[in-house]
Amino acid sequence: MTKNIAILTSGGDAPGMNAAIRAIVLAGHRYQYKIFGFYHGYNGLINNELKPLAISDVEGVIHRGGTLLKSARCKEMRSKTGVSQAVNVLLKNKIDALIVIGGDGSFNGLLAIHEQWQGQVIGIPGTIDNDIDGTDFTIGFSTAVDTALSAIDKIRDTADAFERVFLVELMGRQSGQITFNVGVSCAAEKVLSFENFNIQQEQETLEQISTQIQTAKQAKHSSFLIVIAENLWPNGSEALAKKLTSMTGIDCTLCTLGYIQRGGSPVAKDRILATKMGVSAIQAISQGKSNIMVGEQNNAICLIPLTQAVEHNKTVSPLLIDAQENILALSKQTDAY
Amino acid sequence: MTKNIAILTSGGDAPGMNAAIRAIVLAGHRYQYKIFGFYHGYNGLINNELKPLAISDVEGVIHRGGTLLKSARCKEMRSKTGVSQAVNVLLKNKIDALIVIGGDGSFNGLLAIHEQWQGQVIGIPGTIDNDIDGTDFTIGFSTAVDTALSAIDKIRDTADAFERVFLVELMGRQSGQITFNVGVSCAAEKVLSFENFNIQQEQETLEQISTQIQTAKQAKHSSFLIVIAENLWPNGSEALAKKLTSMTGIDCTLCTLGYIQRGGSPVAKDRILATKMGVSAIQAISQGKSNIMVGEQNNAICLIPLTQAVEHNKTVSPLLIDAQENILALSKQTDAY
Amino acid sequence: MTKNIAILTSGGDAPGMNAAIRAIVLAGHRYQYKIFGFYHGYNGLINNELKPLAISDVEGVIHRGGTLLKSARCKEMRSKTGVSQAVNVLLKNKIDALIVIGGDGSFNGLLAIHEQWQGQVIGIPGTIDNDIDGTDFTIGFSTAVDTALSAIDKIRDTADAFERVFLVELMGRQSGQITFNVGVSCAAEKVLSFENFNIQQEQETLEQISTQIQTAKQAKHSSFLIVIAENLWPNGSEALAKKLTSMTGIDCTLCTLGYIQRGGSPVAKDRILATKMGVSAIQAISQGKSNIMVGEQNNAICLIPLTQAVEHNKTVSPLLIDAQENILALSKQTDAY
Amino acid sequence: MTKNIAILTSGGDAPGMNAAIRAIVLAGHRYQYKIFGFYHGYNGLINNELKPLAISDVEGVIHRGGTLLKSARCKEMRSKTGVSQAVNVLLKNKIDALIVIGGDGSFNGLLAIHEQWQGQVIGIPGTIDNDIDGTDFTIGFSTAVDTALSAIDKIRDTADAFERVFLVELMGRQSGQITFNVGVSCAAEKVLSFENFNIQQEQETLEQISTQIQTAKQAKHSSFLIVIAENLWPNGSEALAKKLTSMTGIDCTLCTLGYIQRGGSPVAKDRILATKMGVSAIQAISQGKSNIMVGEQNNAICLIPLTQAVEHNKTVSPLLIDAQENILALSKQTDAY
Repeated sequence: MTKNIAILTSGGDAPGMNAAIRAIVLAGHRYQYKIFGFYHGYNGLINNELKPLAISDVEGVIHRGGTLLKSARCKEMRSKTGVSQAVNVLLKNKIDALIVIGGDGSFNGLLAIHEQWQGQVIGIPGTIDNDIDGTDFTIGFSTAVDTALSAIDKIRDTADAFERVFLVELMGRQSGQITFNVGVSCAAEKVLSFENFNIQQEQETLEQISTQIQTAKQAKHSSFLIVIAENLWPNGSEALAKKLTSMTGIDCTLCTLGYIQRGGSPVAKDRILATKMGVSAIQAISQGKSNIMVGEQNNAICLIPLTQAVEHNKTVSPLLIDAQENILALSKQTDAY
Repeated sequence: MTKNIAILTSGGDAPGMNAAIRAIVLAGHRYQYKIFGFYHGYNGLINNELKPLAISDVEGVIHRGGTLLKSARCKEMRSKTGVSQAVNVLLKNKIDALIVIGGDGSFNGLLAIHEQWQGQVIGIPGTIDNDIDGTDFTIGFSTAVDTALSAIDKIRDTADAFERVFLVELMGRQSGQITFNVGVSCAAEKVLSFENFNIQQEQETLEQISTQIQTAKQAKHSSFLIVIAENLWPNGSEALAKKLTSMTGIDCTLCTLGYIQRGGSPVAKDRILATKMGVSAIQAISQGKSNIMVGEQNNAICLIPLTQAVEHNKTVSPLLIDAQENILALSKQTDAY
Repeated sequence: MTKNIAILTSGGDAPGMNAAIRAIVLAGHRYQYKIFGFYHGYNGLINNELKPLAISDVEGVIHRGGTLLKSARCKEMRSKTGVSQAVNVLLKNKIDALIVIGGDGSFNGLLAIHEQWQGQVIGIPGTIDNDIDGTDFTIGFSTAVDTALSAIDKIRDTADAFERVFLVELMGRQSGQITFNVGVSCAAEKVLSFENFNIQQEQETLEQISTQIQTAKQAKHSSFLIVIAENLWPNGSEALAKKLTSMTGIDCTLCTLGYIQRGGSPVAKDRILATKMGVSAIQAISQGKSNIMVGEQNNAICLIPLTQAVEHNKTVSPLLIDAQENILALSKQTDAY
Repeated sequence: MTKNIAILTSGGDAPGMNAAIRAIVLAGHRYQYKIFGFYHGYNGLINNELKPLAISDVEGVIHRGGTLLKSARCKEMRSKTGVSQAVNVLLKNKIDALIVIGGDGSFNGLLAIHEQWQGQVIGIPGTIDNDIDGTDFTIGFSTAVDTALSAIDKIRDTADAFERVFLVELMGRQSGQITFNVGVSCAAEKVLSFENFNIQQEQETLEQISTQIQTAKQAKHSSFLIVIAENLWPNGSEALAKKLTSMTGIDCTLCTLGYIQRGGSPVAKDRILATKMGVSAIQAISQGKSNIMVGEQNNAICLIPLTQAVEHNKTVSPLLIDAQENILALSKQTDAY
């Protein structure tokens, strides 16, 4: 039996979204389904910006950043009216299943639709932040980490040449996944994230970092990189940089990597993850599944209830935090020789 | 109690080996161990090319390809005399534990040493081929996949511009891990590897691929990429290219990516994997472990018997093979519109 | 007065061709010209594969490798019949000016058309080989050099780790521009190209290189890279690698970089060069110019007779050759300390 | 006759400085000169941080960003006392020639030394800003442009996906070289730099850009990138972003690329330029030259008086400005179809 399946991408774009769209289209055609795309996220759903997606539409897109379906934030989806309009458009177009590639905000929209609509709803986790439960990795995360890492490798050159202190602020919303993974990879002298910072110990943390900076300076360590999560420090990372500068008497400069972290050609891991998820989404639809997210756990694809995906229980690997805090960060302990 | 710990890198070099050495040195110093390096692999062990490794020796190396300890193939280790010499050097230097970063050949050497020596022996899987059992990933694999992918993305440009057929040969020895992961990531029209090719059906395979190429050509598909594993095709990949050219009447050109796959700055995943494994190796030594390999399964570090690591039972994910063969490769099925 | 202007890309593709097409389209529309593209090079001209090029067709293409107009080799253009057919198509479509982006073969085709056709003919040098006279750089050359360089930087990692000898063969047809520029950039121990190799001294050269390799080995120099131009060595680069291996007793391995050198996102220099040339081509057409190539000399755009462009008098900078041969290559002279 | 030659790197670091140091060391040894390095720029000269530079010190550095001699800003050199101290250190170490790789500030220091010291002083232009007279390019400029371009290519992905307006601020101090070259290369919808902005027409410019943004939005142009030079806009680029947001009612977001522009592995052009300049500096010393800068004009090395180098008369190519302003930027003119 054929089905009409619609896709949309929503929330912050993430490298690999196009690979997921491609996989959905290829797998969908294999199942004789008709595949459509709503452009501009939920706005396009509400406004009925619908186009069929042929196989030729997804040729030559697997390696491109961004999303060919465009994305957008959509306030209307937070209101009942907006959701009703979305449902009407789905009904009008006789859509049987809706696949949304996005983050937790996007999934909340999907849950709202599910309450009013009989069709199948499937989520695919596409966000660089890797803050979705029920999947070890989200599409875009690996690319964002490598992009940030390449940028910091360059900053390290200057930091080393001038023996300077830099704070580098990374994206991730309320999650330290990017920050910790990049921090360990770039051999940061200090990683500051939600997982190891307690706002009640702000002063203590400041004093600890100041001491570390001064110790490193005295040891003529060539440079000092602090990798910090956005949204972490009270009053912002710039305030922290200024505070550290005044406390240590050493110039501490902030670099905010910003939007380069969202773009770029996806790395292999994101293309593969996106491809597997896209294929699995179509398979799940063929099996009549609904109200689920396609995830990957322990290298195997899994389907989890959509409600679980947005619970925000995901944590950074304690081994990684422990290694960074207790072994890697303190690189200036005395040599045993 | 302090220990004398020696490291060596052996076999083909892999991006991330330096990150592993760094982690071992940092963690070792944390445990008050003395860390040494044998240079030039097992040759250096036999010839006693030993140097202490201070923390300053591993600053600024996490992002570098190759191995600061140098590597080499070593025939002597296949003889009893060679192993005895190695053991003598370990005894003479009062080494308590030996960590070898390498592939299965390197681990066989380590097993031979273990038979004659009381010290602790620890393996860390470092090879781009990802053909070691007991670990989901080996150090260097992720970087090699991304390096090959970037190269093929460029070849795709030319293939598209000229609507040409290219065969791209990838490394991996007897394993299809690199080939399948790269093949899916680059949207190859065909992946040819140990997992989906039966030498008894050579003729059948040739005819199938020829038909696919001609079908694609008639459909004016812009290009056709065949990704093939080294050591797969009888008489070599060049012979296959010539055969396909003569069978189809269409020029099929071979590109052998070669040694660029072994080098380059490691991606974040390899730096993190290497860091975790290096730290865990020291922890395992502190717990008196021996004759084990540090692996990673389901995103968690594990210790497995060294003998299991070299069994060659590892397989490419069936989901990936199935998706490539049955959904992604046949991109020229008729559109449903 | 409006004009109908057609573009085609021909010969080997080169990164930056899309940037040139974009500039022609934007500048052409600015002059109120109608811009068309013939697809698939001269084949498309002969077969009348013509499409209008709107501004929206060239959005989002400046950073893409390959050519959106496709390219192809075209045997028919070497015959009078082919040229006549091409001219007929130009007349039939009332084309006033034809811009060809390509190398010397492509320009010879353009010269043949010019003999039979009253319209304006303009060449833009697009080839990675940089073997066109009358312009310091051709579109694609800078990107190809950087692509080859990145690949060799990775090969250097492995060469250093194993203290190995590698020969790396580079593209360039009969020109050493790529070879010398890459050779100097990657700190090659030896550069072998048309400019510094005399086939009559084959034996002498072999002995000289063998001695250099052995000297380097004795001095424990970590690696030895020979960068060699394709089409240079009698019987091919593989034969040279084998000969050096047997003469030195040291394994000399060949890496052929191949088609990766043609693709990839163009570097800034190629995008800017292509943009300037595209804009200037339209300006030249508006001024009634014909039978010329747009070149760049001493950082300024110039127009030169098309016949001069294909004379093959271009040489590699003697300073570069001299520096490489007499100062940089002999890196194993004794230190003055 | 042998000479003692000292090198230092000063001012902002630039990719390719290591390649220049390598060339100086190799060429110097060829001439039987003794080569030394002062570490940490002029500070190291004043404090006598001198080390000999052997050939082995510059192996494996050509591809590394930063500077192995370290750099630093140095206030003391602005005072007579500082300069006298520097001269004393040069005399004490019997230095015959001093080569400084840096920007205009560094050259002013060199000029001050020249007034009090009989030795030969040679400048090599190393700064990403390309704001030195007498040379078409400075070491580091080409790499910085490509680094910024790669970053903006990624930002474009997000901008396209969300159809957003981004301002991207680039380095360059008081020069628009980076800004214009990057702006043209990334197909910026608007380039704002010293060369095309008049502070007296601030309001006019604001209104013009606002109109362009709104026109593009209405035309459903996918994204709008404004590339802006640092130090250009009164009260800073953030203020401009806010103003445009309030004037257009469309969110205009600022991305400051920052320090990633200074680091990274140098591109081929910078490695070659640095190599040629380093070799030429030694040749100039052998010829008894002093008080000069080694530059490159029209692809040929030249020597110019050091005083000319710091005159700040360099301008961005008018062709580039004109093309950007009048042809490329206005990509929303009506199609001729």
